[in-house]
Amino acid sequence: MADIGARLADIVGLTEVVDDHGHDESLTVPAQRPAHVVRPETAEQVAAILEAATEHATPVTARGSGTGLSGAAVPRADGIVVSFEKMNRVLEIDTENHVAVVQPGVTLQELEERTAAAGLVYPVYPGELSASLGGSVATNAGGMRAVKYGVTRHHVLGVQAALPTGELIRTGGRFVKSSTGYDLTQLIVGSEGTLALVTEAILKLQPRVAHQATVLAPFADLAAVVAAVPRVVASGIGPLILEYIDGMTMGAITHTADLQLGIPDAVRETAQAYLVVMLENRSADRLDEDVAETGEMLAGLGAVDAYVLPGGSARRLIEARERAFYTAKAAGADDVIDTVLPRAALPDFMAAVTGIAQAHGTFVIGCGHAGDGNVHLAVFQKDAEQRSAVLGELFAAAIALGGAISGEHGIGRAKRSHFLASEDPTKVELMRRVKQAFDPAGVLNPGVLF
Amino acid sequence: MADIGARLADIVGLTEVVDDHGHDESLTVPAQRPAHVVRPETAEQVAAILEAATEHATPVTARGSGTGLSGAAVPRADGIVVSFEKMNRVLEIDTENHVAVVQPGVTLQELEERTAAAGLVYPVYPGELSASLGGSVATNAGGMRAVKYGVTRHHVLGVQAALPTGELIRTGGRFVKSSTGYDLTQLIVGSEGTLALVTEAILKLQPRVAHQATVLAPFADLAAVVAAVPRVVASGIGPLILEYIDGMTMGAITHTADLQLGIPDAVRETAQAYLVVMLENRSADRLDEDVAETGEMLAGLGAVDAYVLPGGSARRLIEARERAFYTAKAAGADDVIDTVLPRAALPDFMAAVTGIAQAHGTFVIGCGHAGDGNVHLAVFQKDAEQRSAVLGELFAAAIALGGAISGEHGIGRAKRSHFLASEDPTKVELMRRVKQAFDPAGVLNPGVLF
Ligand SMILES: Cc1cc2nc3c(=O)[nH]c(=O)nc-3n(C[C@H](O)[C@H](O)[C@H](O)COP(=O)(O)OP(=O)(O)OC[C@H]3O[C@@H](n4cnc5c(N)ncnc54)[C@H](O)[C@@H]3O)c2cc1C
Ligand SMILES: Cc1cc2nc3c(=O)[nH]c(=O)nc-3n(C[C@H](O)[C@H](O)[C@H](O)COP(=O)(O)OP(=O)(O)OC[C@H]3O[C@@H](n4cnc5c(N)ncnc54)[C@H](O)[C@@H]3O)c2cc1C
Repeated sequence: MADIGARLADIVGLTEVVDDHGHDESLTVPAQRPAHVVRPETAEQVAAILEAATEHATPVTARGSGTGLSGAAVPRADGIVVSFEKMNRVLEIDTENHVAVVQPGVTLQELEERTAAAGLVYPVYPGELSASLGGSVATNAGGMRAVKYGVTRHHVLGVQAALPTGELIRTGGRFVKSSTGYDLTQLIVGSEGTLALVTEAILKLQPRVAHQATVLAPFADLAAVVAAVPRVVASGIGPLILEYIDGMTMGAITHTADLQLGIPDAVRETAQAYLVVMLENRSADRLDEDVAETGEMLAGLGAVDAYVLPGGSARRLIEARERAFYTAKAAGADDVIDTVLPRAALPDFMAAVTGIAQAHGTFVIGCGHAGDGNVHLAVFQKDAEQRSAVLGELFAAAIALGGAISGEHGIGRAKRSHFLASEDPTKVELMRRVKQAFDPAGVLNPGVLF
Repeated sequence: MADIGARLADIVGLTEVVDDHGHDESLTVPAQRPAHVVRPETAEQVAAILEAATEHATPVTARGSGTGLSGAAVPRADGIVVSFEKMNRVLEIDTENHVAVVQPGVTLQELEERTAAAGLVYPVYPGELSASLGGSVATNAGGMRAVKYGVTRHHVLGVQAALPTGELIRTGGRFVKSSTGYDLTQLIVGSEGTLALVTEAILKLQPRVAHQATVLAPFADLAAVVAAVPRVVASGIGPLILEYIDGMTMGAITHTADLQLGIPDAVRETAQAYLVVMLENRSADRLDEDVAETGEMLAGLGAVDAYVLPGGSARRLIEARERAFYTAKAAGADDVIDTVLPRAALPDFMAAVTGIAQAHGTFVIGCGHAGDGNVHLAVFQKDAEQRSAVLGELFAAAIALGGAISGEHGIGRAKRSHFLASEDPTKVELMRRVKQAFDPAGVLNPGVLF
């Protein structure tokens, strides 16, 4: 049997291994260069690579854009990285069916441009638009607009995927529902490259809504902000974005972006937290009404004030919020987590966070997709053992309140030990058996999830 | 080892087996009384029943309300029926998180009443509200409002389920997204009682929208109706219901319901098909505007006219449409199918249907969730062999156009042979291995799907 390097060279040619192939944006998972890197151009090549890897029992890690936050794209030293950078074509924007068919290496940015030109939108906007669709599917990426449109899972109608055993399958299609056998699409979404490699995705698009407006509301304290969230959701006003940003984070991101929001100093100094509500409507008049209604509602919910941001400022604030991760990183954050909770449990969770942080002399700040109950926390604690204890307690608090470890970033390598420690062993065993059904040789992303 | 009957008697007591336990609403699957019927009251009893069944290698079929249309609730002669009629409590309407927690035997009707009282709605309305939530989850039921809100899959946030091996697991939770391991919830949804038995479900609710209006538009021909559908979707008006009804079916259902819609005879005689558009809005004024806009749009798309139905007529028309299955059955329909297609492929599919029907001397009429590309066809053909040939050709035509066999009724026993004949064998094998991961002894609903 030829060695795996020779097999790969035969199938697609080998690419020089560089540092970039060894890491993603996780703050804690050590970089690791792989033994081989390949850049397939066709689904058939991906299938052949996997078949060879299974025969040689060699680990395989898929790589999109490497923007993931959980180390799920960090390969094994003896393994292969399958980089999708050459499978980067938008195959079709199907305006009749409101569907995009894309190769996995297409970035969200490119899809945004291509859909905009057709008056449509792929409404999932995780903070980093250089991310690939393959990576988005594999992590079930979310982002700020999930409160209105849902996450990646809700927009993947089907995939073509290469199985570790070397076959290509197609799941789902250009239709919005099906009860025709098990939903393999939904099983592959969010599986972090451990079940199959996505070689094509069929994505649901929406009509692009013409008018948007953003309301920023400072609150005296964090508890009041998070208590307001279920009320805004219940109003039926249907916000596109419903984010909370704590005072520290707001200070840092506006400072980094050199952004003046026109909030009087007196208000800024007392505001411990902010709510950002973006609305959209296909009619400008209705949007104006909704903005007025939202302002009144927020006042009634205890907001100090409510500012309608001019278009430019609004865009820059959202961009600054999207870059909150980089701001936290630059400020020396040691880890970033994204626990998800029942929306109404946010006040109790935030109280628990304060307690845990204080008990461990750790600084924890954040912001989050409050409308989804999804809290993004930056943890400042240099000591790895202390930090792991803090994370363990934060996750335990979230789970005790009915939540889960990750809302959208995934488990990857970074949170595997916490996942295995907190999850019901019966479920973990069941997941392992499902993994085995797809990947009998265990070559896909070993060390991720399990 | 005690015999299985004695084991079951010990766990929960046996119930008299009656004819009703042997069938659902499928028109083609022969009724079959099971050997045993049990009516558990707790999740633990369900788990114990499954453990015993696995030990005795005895088939188990779950039964909700028996309204399914694919024979998936028809048991085996040597098997056990687990009827959920005693697990019928709404455990909680959580108004803070917009979540309902229900036992599987709760009917859609009861959930409708309980959520209405709280100003919320579980927006999935398959035509038969006596159906249970357990059955809805297992078939991934859809219905008329899926065009706006999606199907059951999109509203199940988590379940408690009993595994065939006797353990209870909980998946998901009262949160709207998660990237924490494989999505077992979505795998169980639509699995037709072949992977696990659902003992509790966490359902996502929405604010109940105050105002509704219905527009009925006759068209000269079917092709024009289905061609109009993608246009209405693209308009962004966001209909709650977007149904087509062919002329024959409209005649039959309005006759059965003794329903006058105030359409002039001259129009009725030439109309070959109708589009029903229901709109909803939280503001009465906006609704009026949307209705006017819809009327204009439909005129532009070739509607002969557009009638805004008074509330009472609208409700009765929707009810009559929901009962279309019973009307077809009373008229002697021999089978009912629900293929799903890319929305824009509807005209080609309808043309293929006409050709296939004519070639086989078979009468095929229908209506459907056009907004979802989901076509419900009643097939009148007494000869079983001919009928199977017709179905085979209809499914093949749908698949060739990028569709699938069933949009919401499931495969069950009724369409298993067509499913196995048309589906990629690699995918079927993968599904079998997933089934094996859940159900190593193969006791859950053997003969359904595979
Ligand atoms: C500044 C910043 C902001 C962010 N904001 C958000 C946010 O708001 N919401 C959110 O959800 N995420 C956010 N993220 C993280 C987000 O998960 C990633 O941006 C994205 O989902 C990963 O895409 P990628 O192409 O970079 O994947 P990678 O990092 O390359 O890979 C991620 C995972 O996907 C797998 N994978 C990649 N391609 C394939 C394929 N074709 N088939 C199978 N598996 C594959 C990899 O093996 C790995 O397990 C943010 C990241 C950054 C840096
Ligand atoms: C007049 C009429 C109109 C209809 N209209 C629609 C429509 O518009 N859209 C649509 O989608 N469907 C429609 N249906 C069919 C629909 O699938 C069923 O009404 C419903 O989903 C099944 O619920 P049930 O409780 O009757 O399930 P059953 O028929 O009892 O069972 C259905 C399946 O679910 C399984 N099951 C039941 N309970 C459980 C459980 N707790 N755990 C695991 N598996 C379980 C059974 O084993 C079986 O496989 C219609 C049916 C009728 C008669």
